[in-house]
Amino acid sequence: MQIEAVDFFYLSMPEVTLEGDGSQDALLVRVAAGGEVGWGECEASPLVSIAAAICPRSHGACQPVLASVLGQHLDGVADIARISRLVRRNSLDLLQTAHTLSGIEIALWDLLGRRRGEPVYKLLGIKQAFPKMPYASVLFGDSAADTLAKARAIRAKKFRAAKFGWGPYGLGSAEDDRDQVTAAREGLGPDGILLVDAGAIWVDDLDAASQRLAALSAVNAHWLEEPFVSGALDAYRALAAKAGKLRLAAGEGSHDTYMARHLIDHGGVGFIQIDTGRIGGIGPAKEIADYAASRGVTFVNHTFTSHLALNASIQPYAGLAEHKICEFPAEPKSVAFELTENHLMPGDDGMIHLPEAPGLGMTINAAAVARYGVDTEIRVKGKTLYRTPTLPLEARR
Amino acid sequence: MQIEAVDFFYLSMPEVTLEGDGSQDALLVRVAAGGEVGWGECEASPLVSIAAAICPRSHGACQPVLASVLGQHLDGVADIARISRLVRRNSLDLLQTAHTLSGIEIALWDLLGRRRGEPVYKLLGIKQAFPKMPYASVLFGDSAADTLAKARAIRAKKFRAAKFGWGPYGLGSAEDDRDQVTAAREGLGPDGILLVDAGAIWVDDLDAASQRLAALSAVNAHWLEEPFVSGALDAYRALAAKAGKLRLAAGEGSHDTYMARHLIDHGGVGFIQIDTGRIGGIGPAKEIADYAASRGVTFVNHTFTSHLALNASIQPYAGLAEHKICEFPAEPKSVAFELTENHLMPGDDGMIHLPEAPGLGMTINAAAVARYGVDTEIRVKGKTLYRTPTLPLEARR
Repeated sequence: MQIEAVDFFYLSMPEVTLEGDGSQDALLVRVAAGGEVGWGECEASPLVSIAAAICPRSHGACQPVLASVLGQHLDGVADIARISRLVRRNSLDLLQTAHTLSGIEIALWDLLGRRRGEPVYKLLGIKQAFPKMPYASVLFGDSAADTLAKARAIRAKKFRAAKFGWGPYGLGSAEDDRDQVTAAREGLGPDGILLVDAGAIWVDDLDAASQRLAALSAVNAHWLEEPFVSGALDAYRALAAKAGKLRLAAGEGSHDTYMARHLIDHGGVGFIQIDTGRIGGIGPAKEIADYAASRGVTFVNHTFTSHLALNASIQPYAGLAEHKICEFPAEPKSVAFELTENHLMPGDDGMIHLPEAPGLGMTINAAAVARYGVDTEIRVKGKTLYRTPTLPLEARR
Repeated sequence: MQIEAVDFFYLSMPEVTLEGDGSQDALLVRVAAGGEVGWGECEASPLVSIAAAICPRSHGACQPVLASVLGQHLDGVADIARISRLVRRNSLDLLQTAHTLSGIEIALWDLLGRRRGEPVYKLLGIKQAFPKMPYASVLFGDSAADTLAKARAIRAKKFRAAKFGWGPYGLGSAEDDRDQVTAAREGLGPDGILLVDAGAIWVDDLDAASQRLAALSAVNAHWLEEPFVSGALDAYRALAAKAGKLRLAAGEGSHDTYMARHLIDHGGVGFIQIDTGRIGGIGPAKEIADYAASRGVTFVNHTFTSHLALNASIQPYAGLAEHKICEFPAEPKSVAFELTENHLMPGDDGMIHLPEAPGLGMTINAAAVARYGVDTEIRVKGKTLYRTPTLPLEARR
């Protein structure tokens, strides 16, 4: 079958705040081929990823992403990798490419799975999808007292693991940060798995990060996530050597497989966190999951948006039984939660189970797409290169 | 002084072809502060870099680039680095950020230099700007015969060095590629410095690249550029180990200093090629120039567009007398050449000399900006977030 159409839907909360909450907007991608559609989602900045899809070309290696997608044949799994290589080649000099490609690639897997009547993980060669233990992923409270309350609420919801991140962490003194992680531990109880996310706040400042290690060890944190930006391999390696039992987690910024491999090979991380909405989709994320497993590094999804993105980010390591923990957006904004009609909520066993339905098995909520839709238009030389697709969704094809 | 305005001018040839020629369009940036203006240029994909400047925010670490630039104080060199850090932080999750920032950062140096009455290289702490030996940078001909003719023409123009790249190189057999480089050597003569640019065609395929080494050694090529994509450090290191006297060159894809350092530290390159229009501007490029010098690696600019970009890309290593060679776009499209009124043409000594005028010392050609301007408009939620600035330039401020 031939790829006939790729449409982008930019959704947003009416107001987007400055908090470090990535669930405030979303870019949904719909790919149509052979009478079937598939859905994916790009992380982040919807307008810029749309622009990368439809921009006028600058030269042969700086073409719009859609130039390498529309009209391509999609008859099997190998075509997805082939199309991705073509996009990377023809849009080599367009920096935003990987984020735009990611949503499209996810939609291609969904579409092919629907066509074949098989869940995506089976298309990936995974025989059995093992359940994942969700960790509630939330922002630190503005104060330690707020964080304590958040942690208690998470515990009351029966989560066995929680991650606190961003907010004031790293912005004040090491003592402030100690109070925050101590409050998180107190609220979570002694047995809860506690994860801490610094949100790259120290950029590549080894000393600043080192000052937080003692408090993190004292509260028995399971990992320290993103003390540094993704490229700061030297700082990662040096901090990992100092961190003792505490392991480092990073990788969400990876926009290709090389970046993720470098964090494993040169950065000394213990957990590699991949967002399928950024790295180029499900295929490259699967490659990293297998690579991590071969190197004794634990793979974890990065997801702070919708359950479509959550689903797509779990598929790549569904077959790795020992890589158990999974990020679960516990306080998403309504746009992210309502984007799908069904959700990957923890089952009676407290675990996340991938659907066994064809493709990703998620149903897009047409009413939410209409309600949160952001009317957008890009015009160049008097021609409309992009306009928000006509709604309702059903009427479109 | 306070940054009052940042304006983007998207220029393009009427027709943009699929050849690997990055001079077919341009994104000019004008920054205004304290009654002064400065000019910079972003590489590549003007529409996408504009979108990254003005997009609605997605969250606190995914803000439009201009949110961290407008209203900032610019009173000295340290402010440029401070503003750049702020942009990187507040636009962390926006992949296109570095390309948009680059043009702005260059304009900030130009503006500060004009204000101080000093050339940019002096603001960088460089006492003397050493002349650079330009290599004519051109695409391979469609056939070896075409390449021979191109090489002869370059020799006739008295260039002592030339780089041939992209076009058919790497797309056919190793024998075809041998014929191409042999023709280039023949046309250039035995004494010309011959550089070969594979344009990342082999992605990370070590074997494919290795098959070209013998022919490159036979024609005494000075370097092989970008056999692989920027992230393929393992392939670079392995090829460098096989390449004998032939050294590898890479780095143009670096969109932060980490990527460039990794090519030096882990990729084994002999030449590090930095495009100030991509890496974040002149400041980070200077950091890499100094780092390269400390590691015995030669710094080279990457420039395939205008003489404004050429100027900005030479500033960072103007003080490194031993790092002599510089990329010179020898067959630019008219939009790139006409964008400035003055040019950095080789002097009687055959060398490129930076202007001693304040800032970058380049004068923007207002008529060319009008002639090649691409009318562009981005509307979100009924509001115009971007529209091509009003012309003529003089009337704007």
